[in-house]
Amino acid sequence: MKVYETELTVRYAETDQMGIVHHSRYYPWFEVGRTEFFASGGMRYGDMEKRGVMLPLVETSCRYIVPARYEDVVVIRTSVAELSPVKIRFAYDVVRKADGVLLARGGTLLAFTDTNFRPINVKKRVPEVWDYINRLIAE
Amino acid sequence: MKVYETELTVRYAETDQMGIVHHSRYYPWFEVGRTEFFASGGMRYGDMEKRGVMLPLVETSCRYIVPARYEDVVVIRTSVAELSPVKIRFAYDVVRKADGVLLARGGTLLAFTDTNFRPINVKKRVPEVWDYINRLIAE
Amino acid sequence: MKVYETELTVRYAETDQMGIVHHSRYYPWFEVGRTEFFASGGMRYGDMEKRGVMLPLVETSCRYIVPARYEDVVVIRTSVAELSPVKIRFAYDVVRKADGVLLARGGTLLAFTDTNFRPINVKKRVPEVWDYINRLIAE
Amino acid sequence: MKVYETELTVRYAETDQMGIVHHSRYYPWFEVGRTEFFASGGMRYGDMEKRGVMLPLVETSCRYIVPARYEDVVVIRTSVAELSPVKIRFAYDVVRKADGVLLARGGTLLAFTDTNFRPINVKKRVPEVWDYINRLIAE
Repeated sequence: MKVYETELTVRYAETDQMGIVHHSRYYPWFEVGRTEFFASGGMRYGDMEKRGVMLPLVETSCRYIVPARYEDVVVIRTSVAELSPVKIRFAYDVVRKADGVLLARGGTLLAFTDTNFRPINVKKRVPEVWDYINRLIAE
Repeated sequence: MKVYETELTVRYAETDQMGIVHHSRYYPWFEVGRTEFFASGGMRYGDMEKRGVMLPLVETSCRYIVPARYEDVVVIRTSVAELSPVKIRFAYDVVRKADGVLLARGGTLLAFTDTNFRPINVKKRVPEVWDYINRLIAE
Repeated sequence: MKVYETELTVRYAETDQMGIVHHSRYYPWFEVGRTEFFASGGMRYGDMEKRGVMLPLVETSCRYIVPARYEDVVVIRTSVAELSPVKIRFAYDVVRKADGVLLARGGTLLAFTDTNFRPINVKKRVPEVWDYINRLIAE
Repeated sequence: MKVYETELTVRYAETDQMGIVHHSRYYPWFEVGRTEFFASGGMRYGDMEKRGVMLPLVETSCRYIVPARYEDVVVIRTSVAELSPVKIRFAYDVVRKADGVLLARGGTLLAFTDTNFRPINVKKRVPEVWDYINRLIAE
């Protein structure tokens, strides 16, 4: 199954007074991973939103193993852990590039909805999005 | 001229590894000051957006005098420095509540626009918003 | 067991282009809940840090039920779900004040460490912090 | 004079409910520009902090011309506008990569201080940092 890798350099604004990256800041990194995962086949997440498919978050979680620090280069490894016509679950590994140390592992569950946040069956409602995601995973 | 006071307690997530509040974090505080300024007379900023009036930022600035720190209680003093039918300029003082020390001074210039970010003359287009803001200032 | 309630008004900067609060923004709210929980008995979390007790995050999770929106007043209900001399687990309910609707439920696991992020037994190392937290919970 | 270019892709978490990048989010971008500017000659900003040189912000400002949007690739053009042994002023242009449109212009003034935020004369106190920055600018 496809694993998409995204590189980021830790920003100063992402640190807190403990001198490490604030725990809430890993979630926007996961989102960057998802964004690039979707875009990797040519249909960007923004294009899905324009087709009326929203992907609000239903669950998020993260386990922090080793703190990330300012100026660290980290690699986000994004993969799809579960897919159905009503939801999609992603898994993420955050790895420090310099030495390959695993810093954190996370997961997010997203629902396919319309622009009013009503659940939709994306396979029936917007089959080109459904087919696109299936092709991405199969790569 | 009316000065609206808003109290905030500094959040851990607002600090950075210098051990002080990150400079970018004062701008959302100014926004809280504006939000409460607008709401103080009964029409909330969200109501203006629903009437089609957007207030995108044109300029922002801040001068930092004494660092704010985690758990400090700060008072945001918000006032209107300039108003015309096409724009509104706010001024902000951030004061540490415990001793009245001035921590920072900021300013923001906002344009009245429609939902496509095209400039509007709010006095002509949505006079109830124009009248409302003028009443607020005159208080 | 003690449940500590904190009120917050949703900030504009906490929304995203879906028109709802960004999912990562609930975690700083939980942190505000923890901060006030700790402070409620007189010893602030910042005081613990000055005594050399750090509380880095080990796990975070959140389930999103109904989206929070700009200018909503939300109540964070913070409680301790698990406590040992090496870790503390908090649970959070985010409730919309206007109608009592449950918007989200979260949890965070924190480790007691020294300033180098080495695990400590807080009961042995800094008993006044251990006693303090136990008194808070027993209230 | 050296202009350092940094590329960023706009993150979803950086948007707000207006559907554009929140104005406060340009400041962390400027910081990324500064970080890479400093690092471009081999001494990273984190290294300066370890030598006891802090660079707290004294002033920040930004003028917003065209809104940046989710998934836009933007180029931050960072340059030094003013340098003395006690302070350094940076200027930033944010340009949309696809068409070269100027989205925003900003400036930040930073003071050289010790770890207690007391102003220092960096030329006298930490001459290798002073020399390093001068070499960077002269490139």
